Amino acid sequence: MTGTRHAISALLLYSSLLTTTAFFSFQSSSFHKHGLLPSKSIRLKLLPGYPPPSFTSLVLAAAIEETTPVRVGVIGCGRIGMVHLGACSKVPGVKVMAVSNPTISKAEKAAKEFNVPKFTSSADEVITDPDIDAVWICSPSNKHAEQIKLAAANGKHVFCEKPIATSLPETVEAINACNIAGVKLMIGLQRRFDPNFLRVKKAIDNSEVGEAIVVKVCSRDPAPPPIEYVKGGGGIFCDMAVHDLDMTRFLIGQDPIEILAVGSTHIDKSILALDEPSERYDTACAIVRFPNGKQGIIDVCRQSSYGYDQRAEVLGTKGMILTENMYPSTAKIFKTDFTGNADMPYDFFLERYNEAYVRETIAFCECLVNNGDVPCTGQDGLIALVMSIAAGMSAEENRWVKFSEVIEKVFCDEAGNSCMTLGFSDAIPEGFKPTKKIEDLIKESGPKESKFGRLWKSLVAAN
Amino acid sequence: MTGTRHAISALLLYSSLLTTTAFFSFQSSSFHKHGLLPSKSIRLKLLPGYPPPSFTSLVLAAAIEETTPVRVGVIGCGRIGMVHLGACSKVPGVKVMAVSNPTISKAEKAAKEFNVPKFTSSADEVITDPDIDAVWICSPSNKHAEQIKLAAANGKHVFCEKPIATSLPETVEAINACNIAGVKLMIGLQRRFDPNFLRVKKAIDNSEVGEAIVVKVCSRDPAPPPIEYVKGGGGIFCDMAVHDLDMTRFLIGQDPIEILAVGSTHIDKSILALDEPSERYDTACAIVRFPNGKQGIIDVCRQSSYGYDQRAEVLGTKGMILTENMYPSTAKIFKTDFTGNADMPYDFFLERYNEAYVRETIAFCECLVNNGDVPCTGQDGLIALVMSIAAGMSAEENRWVKFSEVIEKVFCDEAGNSCMTLGFSDAIPEGFKPTKKIEDLIKESGPKESKFGRLWKSLVAAN
Amino acid sequence: MTGTRHAISALLLYSSLLTTTAFFSFQSSSFHKHGLLPSKSIRLKLLPGYPPPSFTSLVLAAAIEETTPVRVGVIGCGRIGMVHLGACSKVPGVKVMAVSNPTISKAEKAAKEFNVPKFTSSADEVITDPDIDAVWICSPSNKHAEQIKLAAANGKHVFCEKPIATSLPETVEAINACNIAGVKLMIGLQRRFDPNFLRVKKAIDNSEVGEAIVVKVCSRDPAPPPIEYVKGGGGIFCDMAVHDLDMTRFLIGQDPIEILAVGSTHIDKSILALDEPSERYDTACAIVRFPNGKQGIIDVCRQSSYGYDQRAEVLGTKGMILTENMYPSTAKIFKTDFTGNADMPYDFFLERYNEAYVRETIAFCECLVNNGDVPCTGQDGLIALVMSIAAGMSAEENRWVKFSEVIEKVFCDEAGNSCMTLGFSDAIPEGFKPTKKIEDLIKESGPKESKFGRLWKSLVAAN
Amino acid sequence: MTGTRHAISALLLYSSLLTTTAFFSFQSSSFHKHGLLPSKSIRLKLLPGYPPPSFTSLVLAAAIEETTPVRVGVIGCGRIGMVHLGACSKVPGVKVMAVSNPTISKAEKAAKEFNVPKFTSSADEVITDPDIDAVWICSPSNKHAEQIKLAAANGKHVFCEKPIATSLPETVEAINACNIAGVKLMIGLQRRFDPNFLRVKKAIDNSEVGEAIVVKVCSRDPAPPPIEYVKGGGGIFCDMAVHDLDMTRFLIGQDPIEILAVGSTHIDKSILALDEPSERYDTACAIVRFPNGKQGIIDVCRQSSYGYDQRAEVLGTKGMILTENMYPSTAKIFKTDFTGNADMPYDFFLERYNEAYVRETIAFCECLVNNGDVPCTGQDGLIALVMSIAAGMSAEENRWVKFSEVIEKVFCDEAGNSCMTLGFSDAIPEGFKPTKKIEDLIKESGPKESKFGRLWKSLVAAN
Repeated sequence: MTGTRHAISALLLYSSLLTTTAFFSFQSSSFHKHGLLPSKSIRLKLLPGYPPPSFTSLVLAAAIEETTPVRVGVIGCGRIGMVHLGACSKVPGVKVMAVSNPTISKAEKAAKEFNVPKFTSSADEVITDPDIDAVWICSPSNKHAEQIKLAAANGKHVFCEKPIATSLPETVEAINACNIAGVKLMIGLQRRFDPNFLRVKKAIDNSEVGEAIVVKVCSRDPAPPPIEYVKGGGGIFCDMAVHDLDMTRFLIGQDPIEILAVGSTHIDKSILALDEPSERYDTACAIVRFPNGKQGIIDVCRQSSYGYDQRAEVLGTKGMILTENMYPSTAKIFKTDFTGNADMPYDFFLERYNEAYVRETIAFCECLVNNGDVPCTGQDGLIALVMSIAAGMSAEENRWVKFSEVIEKVFCDEAGNSCMTLGFSDAIPEGFKPTKKIEDLIKESGPKESKFGRLWKSLVAAN
Repeated sequence: MTGTRHAISALLLYSSLLTTTAFFSFQSSSFHKHGLLPSKSIRLKLLPGYPPPSFTSLVLAAAIEETTPVRVGVIGCGRIGMVHLGACSKVPGVKVMAVSNPTISKAEKAAKEFNVPKFTSSADEVITDPDIDAVWICSPSNKHAEQIKLAAANGKHVFCEKPIATSLPETVEAINACNIAGVKLMIGLQRRFDPNFLRVKKAIDNSEVGEAIVVKVCSRDPAPPPIEYVKGGGGIFCDMAVHDLDMTRFLIGQDPIEILAVGSTHIDKSILALDEPSERYDTACAIVRFPNGKQGIIDVCRQSSYGYDQRAEVLGTKGMILTENMYPSTAKIFKTDFTGNADMPYDFFLERYNEAYVRETIAFCECLVNNGDVPCTGQDGLIALVMSIAAGMSAEENRWVKFSEVIEKVFCDEAGNSCMTLGFSDAIPEGFKPTKKIEDLIKESGPKESKFGRLWKSLVAAN
Repeated sequence: MTGTRHAISALLLYSSLLTTTAFFSFQSSSFHKHGLLPSKSIRLKLLPGYPPPSFTSLVLAAAIEETTPVRVGVIGCGRIGMVHLGACSKVPGVKVMAVSNPTISKAEKAAKEFNVPKFTSSADEVITDPDIDAVWICSPSNKHAEQIKLAAANGKHVFCEKPIATSLPETVEAINACNIAGVKLMIGLQRRFDPNFLRVKKAIDNSEVGEAIVVKVCSRDPAPPPIEYVKGGGGIFCDMAVHDLDMTRFLIGQDPIEILAVGSTHIDKSILALDEPSERYDTACAIVRFPNGKQGIIDVCRQSSYGYDQRAEVLGTKGMILTENMYPSTAKIFKTDFTGNADMPYDFFLERYNEAYVRETIAFCECLVNNGDVPCTGQDGLIALVMSIAAGMSAEENRWVKFSEVIEKVFCDEAGNSCMTLGFSDAIPEGFKPTKKIEDLIKESGPKESKFGRLWKSLVAAN
Repeated sequence: MTGTRHAISALLLYSSLLTTTAFFSFQSSSFHKHGLLPSKSIRLKLLPGYPPPSFTSLVLAAAIEETTPVRVGVIGCGRIGMVHLGACSKVPGVKVMAVSNPTISKAEKAAKEFNVPKFTSSADEVITDPDIDAVWICSPSNKHAEQIKLAAANGKHVFCEKPIATSLPETVEAINACNIAGVKLMIGLQRRFDPNFLRVKKAIDNSEVGEAIVVKVCSRDPAPPPIEYVKGGGGIFCDMAVHDLDMTRFLIGQDPIEILAVGSTHIDKSILALDEPSERYDTACAIVRFPNGKQGIIDVCRQSSYGYDQRAEVLGTKGMILTENMYPSTAKIFKTDFTGNADMPYDFFLERYNEAYVRETIAFCECLVNNGDVPCTGQDGLIALVMSIAAGMSAEENRWVKFSEVIEKVFCDEAGNSCMTLGFSDAIPEGFKPTKKIEDLIKESGPKESKFGRLWKSLVAAN
């Protein structure tokens, strides 16, 4: 896993538009040799590590010696923002300097509650504040990518709630921006910090159950979201199962190869009218194939009449470990008509994962204070998204989909003279490697506008 | 389910060899009309129900009025035979008249233990005994089909341990033989009688959890069988997962459409040398698609370091029900280094399913005494086998396999002038219906010898 | 425990009525030496062991060699009688020859169901049947003592459902009768054969939790019995907690010293009108003191709205073991308003302890076939009764009561010239030893008629 | 319960030493009438409520309107002090102004970690700081009483870790001091704030299980404390079972009447050399009798090889509720030799009750901010101590002890001319009321110096 975590993902841009290359660092020389790419071509690379000594790490070193705290800003004072704000305000060596929220009264209330000196309605004001070293991005998902890039441009470390962005190209750009700027980027895949899932991970790492061969993850939301939420959210794999897909990769500790997914609709059939196939499912399962035939099995459902349900199970060669769903207390009640748990499970993710949210924020704070490795990287977020997209393709096309298919997808602009693809780097994990040459990929993709082409267009437009 | 249970499966024989038609009941006239089949063609049909009044049901009616017991013979005094023998000897209205075992001393011991009047080394002697109304076939799997057919020919009702036969054609022949003879045939898919799985079934039948939309079944054997057992057993789907596949169908109560299966090898790599792909797996999972998108998810493994593990979970639209693994007692122990169950789980199926074995035998006894419906039919056994075979195909070919593919498979003899296929009847459940015309199926299958062709050959040879 | 189990309990009779000595075996010479007892005094002794070779054990030895079965009769075809009958009819080497029930139709039905050759309405007919070696006494409690004595007089081994008798003197007489006759007597304290409690016992015997220092037992009946049942039954300690008191002794494996009990009334206050204080309680708890300060803690209640509840917990110096209540299946259900067990606990003792009833009968059968030690002796039943009586005294008098107080209680006839006391033998366990001389006990007890005196009178009258 | 919570406890002082009357509010005139008490006699009374408007409540009112925070000082920076400090620093409307610790470096470290403006080695400095409204006393137990009195004298509200004092008289004096000064006093019986026990309490309050009739509480420490800790700590009932005794009262919601306790020694016999009988026990159980015969049953042990164990169970007329022990995660592990919890239970009280400690501090903060009722009063602490003392007496004297016996105990000085007793007020709960007249109590107690007399002396000396 360590190798994977630090691996460099790459983005290849095959483009005549230099205007889109603002954050790209260097040209691809290898392709020049073969004369296949025009001189305008530029290789986008997710830059590795955090080149010391950056100005930030110097500040951090000073902080440790002279107890100068890491100064933090929190973007968004919604429920999740408040959890992170509360957590930040507890960590020794960290000081929250500013909070922002479009509705400024919420920012003011948050500032008072946690003794934060500044509050504002402008996220950008916080992000560009020279007195701030790192920002927590807890705004709506569609703002994430822009804010990450702005933070990177201003030399701020970034903690970003999942997802990094709502499209693959934007995701890559945002990661890239941070790598180029040499700022840390942590993604809030909070389940990785849940004590229960962590206990499973520890069992695997310590070989308590031998080698993990089958990982099963089950997630059920208490009730389906409104159709407005579902629409445009990328569907059940992107907006819900992404955590479970990530969990199989996190637990097995290897990069997956391919996926077979199934979706169906049982709860509220009105979503069947949505355009995106994955958005029409409220129930899904998937098998993820890992190296050496290891299997990840997930099943998710948007409705669990009995409350939020989150479990994992790992079969190893020498045993098994599983986590049961969580309840607010250990109390059991015994009555005339039933005997069982005195409480219902936690309502939803904010309650269920409260400790995980706190822990992940503390983990990033520690990483900032001690200039340590980011425990959940942008690349982790990227691969989780790739897995989700592949799951959607599999369910739609009723076949195994290799994750490399997503990576080698060609994204072109409307005119067809600006195309790019992901991957093409030795740093891309084995399962994601393109299986064909770049020119063939482009040839095969042709000029026709794909779903991803559309996303790409909007990205180009945004730039 | 009721419709399914009583449905008639059909076998179409396209053959020039009348010698193979010993048990076939009548000619297909419908095909004659269209001139498509030569006069030699014969339609094999799994006959429905048990045409009253048969001689046996008259005897049974008498039994109830005059307390004449149903007279039973047990073939095989191995461990499972002894369980059934013990169960039979407890049921009011049933009397065990004879037991057989190739090693006669075992038969003698069993006879003494349960006060059985006759014992013999010859199964046929018991099967043809005029003083016996029904036989329990607990012999090795490769004897099942022959013994069922012999029993049918002698007008005996049959309880047969799973499987009916080791090949599809033999399975169909055996079922057919019973239907033609008007004798009852019950298959020992004992899990359907386990109190735990039954509780889940009851919850579904009573809508305790709403409509079942996802069924998950997990089975793990304590340790892999010897390679000799694996070899020729049909592989992990046929010799192990068949129970789990059947359980998804039993619980959902509908016939499945298609399957996607995955196999891998983690425990003992020596099995990788075996010819049959499914025999090379020790770990497998599968997704079974049911009507309306309902999902069956199974995962099995030949090794569970912590003992035999058998669980099921059903998500319904209004709740969830699951069964936990079984332990010999409710005792929990708390020690310096662990706290948990004082006992390990039951060793293996004989202990774990002891009550289920007893219950299924009692159920068949009651069915005999009261001339009731067979609770687990030959068709149930047939479909379980079809599901297992399809799973193997899916895992080997890495794709979704429709169960109808198995049904419409064309079986030909070496010369290619004797071919047959399954299905072709309205009685075959929806998911199993051939999608093409018989002549097209035969054309497409061509003269080349398939795996199933091989099985067919041995069947022909055996006849 | 072993020492205890085989220890000889003694009954001292100080009496001028030799007519009551029919079953008394020999005179106490030791007391003559000291001149303390008149020549009329007779020492009743619970005779140890089963002096080989008795005629029965010879028959048993033959049974093993020549497969002559132990021939058994069952008295009483009520629910519990049927359970034992069913169990007996399964044990190799045992043959049920006759059953009896006052309502002869029930006996006939039972005989048919289990192929028993004879049935009758007369218990005595079975008990005196020369073709029978052992009887199972499953009649109402008030018949037990007489039937045991008749069986002993006829040389039959006896399995007797708890209790041996409804009074202490009768209990002693019945035990004595068996010892004198050299027949085996087993008492149905069935919980000792429950797999769950047995697992706890095994943990203690094997030092899995170190030395047991605290034993907690909890019993709750589903609903209070009718007041008619309570009246005259000896109260909550005798008719209900007796099993729990016995369980503390069984688990700790030592004889207890004293008890402190508390009773209260919460369910149905109408029982407050009953005469016997212990009969007025529906809820009780007790602390039993064992040698070296080991503690037994029990709590019982006549009403458990959530079904029959039976649990035990043992804290040892190196760990803890406990048993949870039993449910018909391992199924858990998860619904909108609760999550927990899919089933309610077993209704009551017949379902809950079904396996225990079967096991205890098998254990006694084996003991008969192999001439082994009785696993649950008459003395075990006697001491359980002593513990229950002491608990009632403690609750009534609000103080610690030594079990020896019960043992040294003086029982006199109305005229006061016939008195007796229990104990007075080295064989009586430590905690039960009289602490005073016999003459002092008699002096102190005076001529006044106690509750126990009343019982004694009826005993004398009966003789 | 509400009535009880606000009830006034009273202390009667019969003394010639006016020097001890510093905090006594008024003379007892009623006794003058009868001429029984000399004019020097003074009646000590635990003053009720918090007479509004006190200066503090005005400040609090202001705080709410103008967001002036409640200013807090924390005495003691040990582990438990840090937990409370951390909790205080999170509560909106509360500001920690100063911390103290004898080892000043610890105070400094704590101050830095939580941004506390002042730190000092002197507890008194914090307690008398005019900028502080309330103090958290987290110093060693033997400092509690003095510090409470000093805080009261300085008009500070007090949160005090259990116990209030190490003797009954000191406890009464401290409570009295707070009542006289009109400051709030909260005692840290933290289990009342544990989510698990609270769930049980809620079930009782909401009649989820009907009326509670039996309350069982079980506590086991992981390992015995060093003998130095045990010596002088008051024994197992005062230093350990006090929480369990309080829990029975808390859950039943009534004041108990009497207790029967048992102690024994099984772990480390070296404590048998200690003087105080209760200090010689490492294992104990007790039955507490409540009004209407309701029963509290507790069992405690100083050693639980399997980790800290804390459970409660309540049987009600309509059901049962229980709490299981707590584990760090829901993970279960299944291995070759055991299956069960993947984690061991929490080590000890700081981990196990971490949330409870935080919650109780928050509860007191809220009570301060909103001038609400104290959720766990000094009287609660006093009664818990009375229960513990009575338990020790019961175990030593082997009999039921009424709690009123402790209350009516006469405390005299060495000369015998200064005596006092507790209680003697209608405000003392029913079970605690003296059953005799004051003069009789004094007469009966005589001049001899009891254990409590010794405590009293040291109290006098301290004054």
